[in-house]
Amino acid sequence: MANSPSGDSSIDRIVRVLETFTIDRTVQTASEIGRHANLPSSTAHRLVDGLVHAGLLERDEEHRVSLGMRLWELALRGSRALRLRQVALPHMERVQARIREHTQLAVLEQDSALFLERLSHPGAGANITRIAGRLPLHASSSGLVLLAHASEEVRERVLAAPLAQVAKETVTDAPALRRLLARVRRDGYVVSPGSVESVSTGVAVPVRDRSGDVIAALSVVLPRDAPTEQAIAELLRASRGIRSDLSEH
Amino acid sequence: MANSPSGDSSIDRIVRVLETFTIDRTVQTASEIGRHANLPSSTAHRLVDGLVHAGLLERDEEHRVSLGMRLWELALRGSRALRLRQVALPHMERVQARIREHTQLAVLEQDSALFLERLSHPGAGANITRIAGRLPLHASSSGLVLLAHASEEVRERVLAAPLAQVAKETVTDAPALRRLLARVRRDGYVVSPGSVESVSTGVAVPVRDRSGDVIAALSVVLPRDAPTEQAIAELLRASRGIRSDLSEH
Repeated sequence: MANSPSGDSSIDRIVRVLETFTIDRTVQTASEIGRHANLPSSTAHRLVDGLVHAGLLERDEEHRVSLGMRLWELALRGSRALRLRQVALPHMERVQARIREHTQLAVLEQDSALFLERLSHPGAGANITRIAGRLPLHASSSGLVLLAHASEEVRERVLAAPLAQVAKETVTDAPALRRLLARVRRDGYVVSPGSVESVSTGVAVPVRDRSGDVIAALSVVLPRDAPTEQAIAELLRASRGIRSDLSEH
Repeated sequence: MANSPSGDSSIDRIVRVLETFTIDRTVQTASEIGRHANLPSSTAHRLVDGLVHAGLLERDEEHRVSLGMRLWELALRGSRALRLRQVALPHMERVQARIREHTQLAVLEQDSALFLERLSHPGAGANITRIAGRLPLHASSSGLVLLAHASEEVRERVLAAPLAQVAKETVTDAPALRRLLARVRRDGYVVSPGSVESVSTGVAVPVRDRSGDVIAALSVVLPRDAPTEQAIAELLRASRGIRSDLSEH
């Protein structure tokens, strides 16, 4: 790829532009994009023009720019994320119908839990998770399952790094976290009260592919002191269903 | 953006690489990508390296390449598609629970109907629609709704172009299609038997934003001769619910 005088490639610059769009910032001017991406204004305008021309960004009549439907299409059409999510969705709907709380599917991505899907019952409680949002591996119940089953390399890297105190009860002590992860592997699920928000308890189980590798975590977010037995049973059942359906495709 | 000797920009080349991934081709080698993107092998390998480095593509131990979770995240995180789909999902689930057939949400994108979501009841009939898949505007029930409410510019462009005979009953005569579109605008829904597949009937309604603009189409796919009244009523009700929820956000 062509490099700019500053040495970063076209791809890096495009990624920096796309990164400026977030769930709270879906529409921007080209100048704002330049500012948020820390790119010279002329570079930002030229890049935005090119990305609009390719359909990856869209520009409205007031010259405000948003992510394009074409980008969405290209990112999803051939993605394993979409396939996994499609297979998981009916099972997640069943969990949601029975437990009537938030039901979520997450994968391990760049040392965090990336949420592929979230179904939210109208009456469900607090939940900060968002689709395409991330949570730290050591804090969220999904993250704990993913971390417990991650490669040793990922696990040791996360355990060696500072462990953020997301909530008062987040386990941030590396030896304690190590013991917790061993327990998750042994039990086949995790119940994690107050580790993300003090008002809620996360319950998560691993989702395995046909060869038994853990490829995702399936979770529900319950009110803090709700019973967890039924949620664990429904999640384990859904996880088995997803594994079985993945093998068929 | 830097141009290659052949005159296409880095963005175009990246899009060409991403376009090679489809629902039926989710894993490729860099050489295959080059062949499908019609790029010189050295260019393809360099591009793939850069895209893997940025996380937009992922490479497994066997050097096979797939779309990256990072691309999925960047494309969705700040997208209007995700927001619309999140608002629509509970309403779509209600339609699906009552009608027990495929329920779909589509938007107008580059002169076709692009499907943002599809919920499929386990016992539902045939349906060729796929998430992030497209159907011609004049053939699918969603497309007819979108075309009926498109700008005059889009509508005249589609009517002037050849209208593909997707199925035996697809309306491919421009004057007949024009009359059909007027009827869709008047009725507020469309019932479209056999226009995509002879065994099914599409039923679709427009979804409007708070200012009344049509931003999407909501549809169900029924067995060919199923009654349509309940589906129309449920779709209209869901469409009103989505509009109301969009206004709140």
